[in-house]
Amino acid sequence: MMMTFIYVVAIVAEAMSGALAAGRRSMDIFGVAVIAFVTALGGGTVRDVILGNFPIGWTKHPEYVGLVIAAGLFTTLIAAHMHKLKRLFLALDAMGLVAFSLIGCDIALRLDYALPVVVMAGMITGICGGVVRDVLCNQIPVVFQRELYASVSLVVCCLFLLLRSFDLNPALNTTFSFAVGLALRMQAIRFGWKLPTFSYQGRWE
Amino acid sequence: MMMTFIYVVAIVAEAMSGALAAGRRSMDIFGVAVIAFVTALGGGTVRDVILGNFPIGWTKHPEYVGLVIAAGLFTTLIAAHMHKLKRLFLALDAMGLVAFSLIGCDIALRLDYALPVVVMAGMITGICGGVVRDVLCNQIPVVFQRELYASVSLVVCCLFLLLRSFDLNPALNTTFSFAVGLALRMQAIRFGWKLPTFSYQGRWE
Amino acid sequence: MMMTFIYVVAIVAEAMSGALAAGRRSMDIFGVAVIAFVTALGGGTVRDVILGNFPIGWTKHPEYVGLVIAAGLFTTLIAAHMHKLKRLFLALDAMGLVAFSLIGCDIALRLDYALPVVVMAGMITGICGGVVRDVLCNQIPVVFQRELYASVSLVVCCLFLLLRSFDLNPALNTTFSFAVGLALRMQAIRFGWKLPTFSYQGRWE
Repeated sequence: MMMTFIYVVAIVAEAMSGALAAGRRSMDIFGVAVIAFVTALGGGTVRDVILGNFPIGWTKHPEYVGLVIAAGLFTTLIAAHMHKLKRLFLALDAMGLVAFSLIGCDIALRLDYALPVVVMAGMITGICGGVVRDVLCNQIPVVFQRELYASVSLVVCCLFLLLRSFDLNPALNTTFSFAVGLALRMQAIRFGWKLPTFSYQGRWE
Repeated sequence: MMMTFIYVVAIVAEAMSGALAAGRRSMDIFGVAVIAFVTALGGGTVRDVILGNFPIGWTKHPEYVGLVIAAGLFTTLIAAHMHKLKRLFLALDAMGLVAFSLIGCDIALRLDYALPVVVMAGMITGICGGVVRDVLCNQIPVVFQRELYASVSLVVCCLFLLLRSFDLNPALNTTFSFAVGLALRMQAIRFGWKLPTFSYQGRWE
Repeated sequence: MMMTFIYVVAIVAEAMSGALAAGRRSMDIFGVAVIAFVTALGGGTVRDVILGNFPIGWTKHPEYVGLVIAAGLFTTLIAAHMHKLKRLFLALDAMGLVAFSLIGCDIALRLDYALPVVVMAGMITGICGGVVRDVLCNQIPVVFQRELYASVSLVVCCLFLLLRSFDLNPALNTTFSFAVGLALRMQAIRFGWKLPTFSYQGRWE
């Protein structure tokens, strides 16, 4: 129940982030709807395709498709005021990242995949929506460059599997992993924590 | 029969549009063949993957693969004269958009997907080829920015499903939806009809 | 056995090429790991998804995922010395291209796809990793523009199927096709062989 609520909040937050990205490229409202859709539901789509988990999640819940498109279009109306909501928005986006990661792990576990694949499934769910958004907006995916983001997904997935291996109650495990991930992401934003970057300018290839 | 003929015309038109896009990026003839292929058959591929509809369409009809690659390579020979065929080409491209949309709906209906998913399947078939083409050519997909294009696909899919719900004869329904979609697209080009765009320059994220 | 060894060498070489591409975009080490992963295993992933061949290869061999990520991260440590290894690196990359192509053909044959689809599967395995790498690095895929690369994959796949139709011993066929492909690619690099390019600057669309 709780996860469903957080999931809905998360896809709405992701759809809004997609709509803003589309607005930066001056897309028409159809483009806004598409980018909102792929940002919110693209991660789960890639995960389901890679895991061979058909029918894909959103095809069983078309109401989510309507919701994220509505959220994207609504964002075009309130965009001028979005900067006032910056802190709330970042918190929702962080909740989305963590919730998506846990949901991805859960689905891969049920399909009996090996643990490393479970972690990959969690991370794919958490970050692929943003990656596809950035590819469609013709920019290098920000998750490969900005403050701890994908790494938060990795930590959450590993923590969840570790606690699970100790037979921790699933609800407790989910709650605890969620809280740790959310706190880590918010601290990373606050203090600007980043991974080391790798710069290479060789052109010999 | 008629739809098969229109489909063949449509994939040839899409392959030619892909070849021209590759030419704008000065690709080699292999790149031309690949872009022609993904533009013509990429929409159906994405649709089949998302619907879990295996084996994918073109793997059962490799003759279409040969056809679209041949069309792409042929385009490199006649490119200097393509501007004389502008009106014909735009009409063929519009036929492709509408035909792809109806074919996508038809396939999703046969797989018993919910109606919103059927509409999505029609639109994915109609526009994803062009989206993948533009991503591979490193530009923002034009369908998110130019005259009514994706919206035509949406209108065609909804109209087709609406008439279907009234138990209209399928052949009649297809013909009528096709004609309306084609007319709408051609008028949109002629009069420069566009959706409103959303511009957002906030950088607070 | 031999093919497994060459496959491992190939995915390591591809992962290193991915890491260098990520370095050119100054990604963080997470981005390096992702680009290494998609470059090495992305081609096989796209092939398996398109052929409906679930579960996807790397989900059954998570050790390969660890290997390519380790190879990518290791590359960040030795990048300053990579130019000394240029010739070795290009040879490993060429081995990867040819090995991937043959593996792709082999998998599609076992799934009883038609011969043109088998060739497509070989080429997808050979080149898609690099295509996804370049899309994520926001550049036009180099395989569409530089010296004979994708065409080598095409030649190898066709040669392999031709010899197979003469009932040549599979191991011998694989060895011979591999050697021809490797030689062709190395000569193409040495002499700068390229396909003709197609340039088109019309903007009438």
